[in-house]
Amino acid sequence: MKTHLECIPCFIRQTVEVTKDLGLDEEQAVTLTRRVLEMALELDWQQPPPLMGRDIHRVIREITGERDPYHAIKINATEAALELLPELERRVTSSEWPFHEAVRASIAGNTIDLGAKMGREVEVSDVFEAAFSMPVDKEAAGRLEREVQGCGNVLFITDNAGEIVFDRPLLELIGSDKVTVAVRGNPTINDATRDDADRSGITERFRVITSGTDVPGTWLKGSSGDLVDAFTRAETVIAKGQGNYETLSEQPRGIWFLLRAKCPVVAEDLGVPEGAFVVKETIRASASDKERRTANRKS
Amino acid sequence: MKTHLECIPCFIRQTVEVTKDLGLDEEQAVTLTRRVLEMALELDWQQPPPLMGRDIHRVIREITGERDPYHAIKINATEAALELLPELERRVTSSEWPFHEAVRASIAGNTIDLGAKMGREVEVSDVFEAAFSMPVDKEAAGRLEREVQGCGNVLFITDNAGEIVFDRPLLELIGSDKVTVAVRGNPTINDATRDDADRSGITERFRVITSGTDVPGTWLKGSSGDLVDAFTRAETVIAKGQGNYETLSEQPRGIWFLLRAKCPVVAEDLGVPEGAFVVKETIRASASDKERRTANRKS
Repeated sequence: MKTHLECIPCFIRQTVEVTKDLGLDEEQAVTLTRRVLEMALELDWQQPPPLMGRDIHRVIREITGERDPYHAIKINATEAALELLPELERRVTSSEWPFHEAVRASIAGNTIDLGAKMGREVEVSDVFEAAFSMPVDKEAAGRLEREVQGCGNVLFITDNAGEIVFDRPLLELIGSDKVTVAVRGNPTINDATRDDADRSGITERFRVITSGTDVPGTWLKGSSGDLVDAFTRAETVIAKGQGNYETLSEQPRGIWFLLRAKCPVVAEDLGVPEGAFVVKETIRASASDKERRTANRKS
Repeated sequence: MKTHLECIPCFIRQTVEVTKDLGLDEEQAVTLTRRVLEMALELDWQQPPPLMGRDIHRVIREITGERDPYHAIKINATEAALELLPELERRVTSSEWPFHEAVRASIAGNTIDLGAKMGREVEVSDVFEAAFSMPVDKEAAGRLEREVQGCGNVLFITDNAGEIVFDRPLLELIGSDKVTVAVRGNPTINDATRDDADRSGITERFRVITSGTDVPGTWLKGSSGDLVDAFTRAETVIAKGQGNYETLSEQPRGIWFLLRAKCPVVAEDLGVPEGAFVVKETIRASASDKERRTANRKS
């Protein structure tokens, strides 16, 4: 997805909100805001918005001198989510249709997003309530369930710290034997890295690879060989959140996107109302793609 | 009020929204947005935000080649408000406390504001309903009523087209013999000019002067002699809306501000919740000020 005009004020708003989240002093805040205004003037509008997000957060790390400015925020979100996990798992396993409930919980987790406006000031407990009240496209959830049951190789690309705890019931239903979990290679905003996957109990249950980059999305150019290879070989790719959608939506293969549409631009691109829980498969992979990946799997 | 960091994303957001309000093509929209980003980089943060608003709308007029890009929008707001005026006047005159009702109607009118985020997509009929449901500080309204009854010379500084129709019941209660109505000197956003005052039936009932400028507020430096003189001589000054508050709040004299707090920065500066109907007198004029102005009035 290209950068839209509406993304420009959103970049600046996010920047100003970051200065508060991280408690920057006035000089730092003004310096950061001016740097982002300059970056907005030099922006390549053809690139997806998360590349600007990457650049903004590189400047934030430079100005704060911190490698991971969101470290504490991510730990808090993870711990709060882990406290809710047993009840989450109980609700999923005891429901009439566990896969549907697990998809809904995973998308509810995507409400934890310090980038998107709607995701701010969200209590993890509110996320938990939303998990079992928001409607999800049952037909699409059913197709996704049949697809993962019928394939041997699933790449699950995660989004934010805290959110990944809400992905666990779905990952368990897909199966640790067939799923590979991708996280960001380096800290960027509150996106999940390997540390966050460790802290969330993901690493001990599933194969975890990293993007090798600090893009708050999945930009295959410059990503690690692990990620590019997993993306190419996977029979089914599931990607969480807006950042992954914005960077992957134009890839010429079928990808399942699970996200909450938190901004008007993404909502319009998806053709859903703002705030909607989205289960959407982009271009269904052609038969030949499927055969190639099935061959890869056998090789 | 100085420009706050939070004003920067708001300037950019307003700019992008303007491109839609005025139906600019993509090239115009990108050009305007880039110009505003450049202006934000050169901004004097010590100045009140409406001066940036003035500069943004100068660029908009330059790019569109229109002297008054909001002409049609202002006429529609004025006509819609005029349709409601008879019922508005009936409600005010038939109420137990007409002055209080007139103040409330006048502040409700301030919801018509294409600059502030909260004021966008507001139906004039919704404004009308709000006029009789939102709470207003009765003690302050009572003090204002006693002050205008006891003085001979009131300056009433208006804000937006459409809104000024909702000011009419209050202006009538203050009295055409003692009130001078100030409008903007030149078109800027949807602020009321003399044309809008004519169209709203204000000019035929009251003395109308203009600021002589295109500042969407009241910036005495560079304002017309009429306005500066009226401001100096007035025993009571009433100013409508955020733009007038932002430009006048630090003036060393008592000013009554009637507005709806539509943005978090102004709400915080006023110490009220966002969305509140505000009747607030800043620094009460000292006795000597009052004497001087009473002397002026007699002279």
